[in-house]
Amino acid sequence: MNDFTFLLPTKFVFGRGVTDRVGAELAAAGYRHALVIYGQGSVIRTGTLDRVLATLDAEGIEHTELGGVRPNPEVGLVREGVELARACGADLVLAVGGGSVIDTAKAVAVGVPYEGDVWDLFAKRAKIVAEGKLPVACVLTIPAAGSESSASCVISNDELKLKRGLSSELHRPVVAFMDPELAFTLPAYQIAAGVTDMIAHIMERYFSSVGPVPVTDNIACGIIHALVEEAPRALADPRDYDAQANIMWASTLAHNDIAGVGRNAVAGGRAGGWECHGLEHELSAHHTGITHGAGLAVVFPAWMRYVWRSAPERFLSFGRSVFGIEPVDAEADGVDVTPEEAVADAVTATIDELQAFFVSMGMPRTLGELGVTADDIPALLETLEQNKGARFGDLQPLTMDDARAIYESCL
Amino acid sequence: MNDFTFLLPTKFVFGRGVTDRVGAELAAAGYRHALVIYGQGSVIRTGTLDRVLATLDAEGIEHTELGGVRPNPEVGLVREGVELARACGADLVLAVGGGSVIDTAKAVAVGVPYEGDVWDLFAKRAKIVAEGKLPVACVLTIPAAGSESSASCVISNDELKLKRGLSSELHRPVVAFMDPELAFTLPAYQIAAGVTDMIAHIMERYFSSVGPVPVTDNIACGIIHALVEEAPRALADPRDYDAQANIMWASTLAHNDIAGVGRNAVAGGRAGGWECHGLEHELSAHHTGITHGAGLAVVFPAWMRYVWRSAPERFLSFGRSVFGIEPVDAEADGVDVTPEEAVADAVTATIDELQAFFVSMGMPRTLGELGVTADDIPALLETLEQNKGARFGDLQPLTMDDARAIYESCL
Repeated sequence: MNDFTFLLPTKFVFGRGVTDRVGAELAAAGYRHALVIYGQGSVIRTGTLDRVLATLDAEGIEHTELGGVRPNPEVGLVREGVELARACGADLVLAVGGGSVIDTAKAVAVGVPYEGDVWDLFAKRAKIVAEGKLPVACVLTIPAAGSESSASCVISNDELKLKRGLSSELHRPVVAFMDPELAFTLPAYQIAAGVTDMIAHIMERYFSSVGPVPVTDNIACGIIHALVEEAPRALADPRDYDAQANIMWASTLAHNDIAGVGRNAVAGGRAGGWECHGLEHELSAHHTGITHGAGLAVVFPAWMRYVWRSAPERFLSFGRSVFGIEPVDAEADGVDVTPEEAVADAVTATIDELQAFFVSMGMPRTLGELGVTADDIPALLETLEQNKGARFGDLQPLTMDDARAIYESCL
Repeated sequence: MNDFTFLLPTKFVFGRGVTDRVGAELAAAGYRHALVIYGQGSVIRTGTLDRVLATLDAEGIEHTELGGVRPNPEVGLVREGVELARACGADLVLAVGGGSVIDTAKAVAVGVPYEGDVWDLFAKRAKIVAEGKLPVACVLTIPAAGSESSASCVISNDELKLKRGLSSELHRPVVAFMDPELAFTLPAYQIAAGVTDMIAHIMERYFSSVGPVPVTDNIACGIIHALVEEAPRALADPRDYDAQANIMWASTLAHNDIAGVGRNAVAGGRAGGWECHGLEHELSAHHTGITHGAGLAVVFPAWMRYVWRSAPERFLSFGRSVFGIEPVDAEADGVDVTPEEAVADAVTATIDELQAFFVSMGMPRTLGELGVTADDIPALLETLEQNKGARFGDLQPLTMDDARAIYESCL
């Protein structure tokens, strides 16, 4: 178990109807003017935005709106938000939406005190400063990215064809309003992609080069186990409150580091090598129609098949905890396999079962299903190298040749 | 899954040697004068207190010391601490010790702004106020009570023979220094009692009247499962860093509510009815030599045997998740038991296995081993009723007759 520092400053206000308590909570915390950020219209259609604004009005909190955030949010809108926040004198950025909206709000919040172009922060040409940074609050409408309490923020730059993550403890929202009933109207594909993203967040941490950390590992596998049971219920009946509530809370726990503490390779660092997020980011940066979770559903099993021999014990533990898969014992079970074959069979069965679960939710199995062909791979590798370097990852550092092989294996 | 609000403001600084970083962290946070509270000498003998004070000196943080906190800490020392904190102008209470020391620090911190006798707060004759309350920091030396990030505080009053809990979100420490190497010198009995206390904290939440909350429940059982595996390692070799680190982190997670969210019967309330803590508190209030965890090791299995028929499914889930115990399937297994007998057998096996685990660590099985006899029960019941009322609990509310039956069942 490695040394770590962990601070989760987000207040979670969770349950039925918390959407109607936004203004009261924010007023009690002393906020006076919110820059309200939202997406491409679903929060308008469902009435959620109006509900939130009404609570602000009721408390006399001023607000300025900025809509139009798209999936794989773009830096252009972040720049607009920074200007708007400065112009209106906002003391808070309030995101009403899913991960893309919250990430946009986080990027605006750190962009406000920075004099240059906010992309400099994502290009790592400048550092986030605490002074003058605006606090972020959010009303979560799509459980998936975990941005409601994570230190993560991912923004795309269409012009440069780049998608860049910028992690900072300063990003964590001050308050997250989580109303599972808001998920009742989500399309099945979005529920499925969200659950896939959650599982991926946990697995990126689980499959780090650090050995077992039983408390953290059991929490990680326990959350995945719950997702594997709850997701089919939410897909069968999106108005199943308990299923949606468990999924929404899991989205938070999957990415706020509670499922990763002690698994960080570097003291103070983040747990995991984030290889699959690296591989997927290129897919949705080049093909902006790809939902992040759907890209992960293809890439993660392919990566697992490619690298598991680097840490077979880790993959066996995962299969045992999440799916109850044990390698056969040749002697006791009276079968003719070597111990090595038994391990390979158990790991393969684990990856097969995980992939079958993704597919059962309607997620793709291949890049082809996402419209990505062999011809696209060179361009993916080019920006992958720009973003991650010639060699990246932790459990088994990947070269660009490895990355090519993984992409090719799931065409 | 019930509505909840959850905020965990504690910063965890966890790992080897963090004891030497106390002063630097506190200075960076702006503290200038710490009232340092400790126990009956082990932190002096081990040199931990001197290490901590040296880091304060190095940063120019003034400090005033108050030692002598005993297990089942008494309000007398709290009163001294309140006077001392006011007299020296402390802006922080720094606990160096285990749960009793941290609880004393919490009580002092809320006592400072209260003009009357601090016991009034525990007697619920007055309310904690935020204004003027001192922040609490802690250097944890005994993983057990989880007080390092919990909202709990328990203080005894020898004169009144009362032991009273006073929960408040305001109690949560601002920073917890957690150095697993400090646990290397703990006696085996203290390690075992600590692990029992952790498991009890999780079970009090797990066995609430609320139905399944899979994400929370899997986390709860996952932490207990890790403890069942790590405790024997720490007992066999107290210098096993990974075992001690997992146990120390589990102590925190067991009681900071992450293993209880959504299981609260009342919105905003705490998960669980805390029946066993109620029953145990009387034991250690009347017999101050009883270690809290040892009392719980006796009381918890007895309570489980008494109430499980109120929620058999809950007890079956627990046995399945923690110990892999399934009820026999009469038809498939070709045995002659009714479904009701199969459930009773599985639940009994679960409780037996839990109790056997406690006993394997050196914990007692009976009240007799703790020096409590049938003659003591009337006095226990008298203060139990004063503390908890004539009927208390949540899964199956207990009358004083029930409490008598439970005490008698474990004589």
